[in-house]
Amino acid sequence: MSLFRFDVTNTFEKSRTGVLKFDNGIHVETPVFMPVGTRGSVKAVSQESLEEIGFNLILANTYHLYLRPGTVVLKEFGGIKKFMSWPRLILTDSGGYQAFSLSKLTRYSAEGIHFKSHIDGSPHFFTPEKVLDIQDIIRSDIVMPLDDCAPYPADEKRLRQSLERTHQWIGQSLHHWKRMGYDKTRNLFGIIQGGTNLAFRSESVDFMKDLDLPGYAIGGLSVGEKNDEFRNVLAATAAQMPEHKPRYLMGVGSIPEILFAVNHGIDMFDCVLPTRNARNGQVFTSLGKLNLRAEYNKFLDKPIDENCGCRVCKRYSLGYIRHLHKTQELLAYELSSFHNLFFMHQLMGQIRNSIRNNDLPSLTQDLNARFTAQVSEF
Amino acid sequence: MSLFRFDVTNTFEKSRTGVLKFDNGIHVETPVFMPVGTRGSVKAVSQESLEEIGFNLILANTYHLYLRPGTVVLKEFGGIKKFMSWPRLILTDSGGYQAFSLSKLTRYSAEGIHFKSHIDGSPHFFTPEKVLDIQDIIRSDIVMPLDDCAPYPADEKRLRQSLERTHQWIGQSLHHWKRMGYDKTRNLFGIIQGGTNLAFRSESVDFMKDLDLPGYAIGGLSVGEKNDEFRNVLAATAAQMPEHKPRYLMGVGSIPEILFAVNHGIDMFDCVLPTRNARNGQVFTSLGKLNLRAEYNKFLDKPIDENCGCRVCKRYSLGYIRHLHKTQELLAYELSSFHNLFFMHQLMGQIRNSIRNNDLPSLTQDLNARFTAQVSEF
Repeated sequence: MSLFRFDVTNTFEKSRTGVLKFDNGIHVETPVFMPVGTRGSVKAVSQESLEEIGFNLILANTYHLYLRPGTVVLKEFGGIKKFMSWPRLILTDSGGYQAFSLSKLTRYSAEGIHFKSHIDGSPHFFTPEKVLDIQDIIRSDIVMPLDDCAPYPADEKRLRQSLERTHQWIGQSLHHWKRMGYDKTRNLFGIIQGGTNLAFRSESVDFMKDLDLPGYAIGGLSVGEKNDEFRNVLAATAAQMPEHKPRYLMGVGSIPEILFAVNHGIDMFDCVLPTRNARNGQVFTSLGKLNLRAEYNKFLDKPIDENCGCRVCKRYSLGYIRHLHKTQELLAYELSSFHNLFFMHQLMGQIRNSIRNNDLPSLTQDLNARFTAQVSEF
Repeated sequence: MSLFRFDVTNTFEKSRTGVLKFDNGIHVETPVFMPVGTRGSVKAVSQESLEEIGFNLILANTYHLYLRPGTVVLKEFGGIKKFMSWPRLILTDSGGYQAFSLSKLTRYSAEGIHFKSHIDGSPHFFTPEKVLDIQDIIRSDIVMPLDDCAPYPADEKRLRQSLERTHQWIGQSLHHWKRMGYDKTRNLFGIIQGGTNLAFRSESVDFMKDLDLPGYAIGGLSVGEKNDEFRNVLAATAAQMPEHKPRYLMGVGSIPEILFAVNHGIDMFDCVLPTRNARNGQVFTSLGKLNLRAEYNKFLDKPIDENCGCRVCKRYSLGYIRHLHKTQELLAYELSSFHNLFFMHQLMGQIRNSIRNNDLPSLTQDLNARFTAQVSEF
C-alpha cells in the first residue's frame, strides 16, 4: 500500500483538477476515471492494454475477490497487484454494496452484513473489521470501509439506520486499522450516505469531515433515484465536502453524469459502463454513442471514430467490428472495450484541460448534446 | 491474390523445409502451421497479436464467410484481408467440408452440394464454380477447389463416387478459373481424396499430378478413422505426391500427428486445436500439455511455461490464468490462445531447424514422449 497526498492544482468555479501522488512514484491526475476490474481483470482488456491506454488506477471488488480467488490465494501471491501483474494502483470497494446487490438472503445487522455467495450459496458475514482484513490481504492502494447502503426508495427510519450504521462502522474501521498497525487514516476513505435526504447527507458529511480522512466517497447514489434527485443530492453533498481531499463518486457513470459531477467538484469516478456497453456493441465516439450492431455499419470501411487515435480505430473498420459482434467473435469484446476505455481516458484528459483553460462549461454543453440523447438505452 | 513459387530448401530423409515466396514479398517458411480464422478472426486473438507472434499465413473458411458477412460485404471491402485488416496472407478452404459437417440436410449430387445454413436454415448450393467465385471475392492467396469428402466409414462405392466427383470438379474448377481470366492453375491447390483405400488414394494422386497444380492437399483424413489407418494412408499418399509442390494436410492437428506428417514430407498444416484447447483451458508447454483449470495451479506464481518467451509467459502466472478460467473472464481466452499459438509457431521453427540439422528423429521422439500421453483428451 502506497501512501498518497492529494493536491488541487487548478480550479474553475466548483470544478478542480488535482493530482494523487502515491509514494511509489505513480501520479494520478484528477478528475480521473477508473476502469472496473471486478475479479482482478477489466473484462476483455489485458493489463498490457490498460498500460497502453495510460490508466494508473483501476478498481477491483472486494466481494468478488473474497469469493474467488479468495484470501488464501491472494495472501500467497502478496496481493491482487502481484496476482494480476498490475504494477500500478488499485482501489477496492468494501464489498458491502455487492453483498447487498448480488447476494440472495442478505441480512443487515448492527454488526455487519450476512449474505450468501451468489456462486454457491455459502454463508458469509462481512463486518467492518473483516472487510479491512480482506483489503489488507488484497493490498489495495485505496481502501473503502464497510457502509450500509440503503435501497431506493427507503423511508426515513431505514435511512437513519443506514447513516448510523455507516458512522458506527467507520469508527470501528479506524479502530481496527490502528490495531493493524496503520496510521489511523492511512488510505482509508470515508463514505457519505443519507440517500436522497439532504439533511442526512449533510449530517453524514459533517460526521466524516471530523474524522479527517484522506479522501471521501459519495455512496448510495445511482441506486434507482430519478436523475433530478441524483443531481440535487450530488450537488448539495459535493458542495459541503472538504476542499483539500479527493472526492469520489462511487459507481457513476454515464458521460453526462460524470460531467455534472465534475462541474460540482468531484475528482474520482468508476463505472462498468464503458466495458459493459462495449460488450453489448455500444461504443462512444466524438459524435456521440454508436450501436455497432446496426445494419448501417455493414459496409462502412471507416473506423469507429475518425477522430480517435486508439489502435482499434487505426486498424479496424466499423464493418468488420459489426461482423465480429454479429457473429459473437471474442475479438469483438476486446476491440470494443479497448476503444471505449481509450475514449474515457481521453475524455478525462479533455475535461482536465477544459478546467485548466476555464472552458469546462462549453465542453460540458458540447458533450451533453452528444451523449444525452440515448442515455435511457444504457 | 499474390502468385507464389515454392522452393524446397533442405531435405532430411522424407522431410523437407521449403519456402512459399509470394510476389507481394511475403515469404512463408515450411513446414508451417496456419491458425484458423474461421469467420475472419482467429478466435480471441487480434491481428496485432498474430503479427507479433510472426504468422504470415492464416486460414479462413469459405462456408462461414459466405454466410456471414456474405459476399456482398466482402466485395465492397475488396476481400477478406482488407475487411479484417490483415495485410499478410490468407488461405481459404472450399467450404465443401463445412457444408458437409455443419449443415443439416446436406445432399450431394454430381453438380455440387446442397445444404441448409446452420444459422438460419436457408438453402444454398455450392458448385465447383460457385466456390471459386466466392473465393475470388474473398481474394484468398491460396484457393481450394470443391471436393467431395466421403464420411468415415464409407463403402467402396461411396469412396469411388467421392473420387470421381472430386476429379470431375477439379476439371470444372480449372475450366472456370480460366474463364475468370486466371492462369489455369493460379494458386489453386488440388485435393486428394480416397478415404482409407490406398489404391484410391494412389489413383487420386496420379490424377491430380497430371494437372500440374501449384500445390496439393490431402483431404478426407482425420474424419474418424483410427490413428493407425490415418498414419498408413498419410504415409502412402505423401510418398507419391509431387516433390516440388507444397503438400498440405488439411485440418490436422495434434502435435504427434504434425510430427508424423512432417516426417513424411508434409509442408502445411491448419487446425483449430491450439485455439480451441486454449479456450477450454488446455495449453502446450515445453514439458507437454497442461490443464490450466487444475487445482494444483491455484497457488503457482510461475508462468504457463518457464521456457516460453511469449508475452503471456513473461507477465502472467499460472495461478492468475487459472483464476481467469475458473471465473470465465474473457481475458482467459485471449491469454491462453496467444500462448498456444506462440507455442505452435515456435514449434514449427524448431521442426524446421531440426530438418536443417538432420536431427528431426530425436526432436520427434522427444516431443512424442511429451505430447502423446493425453492425445485422447483432445
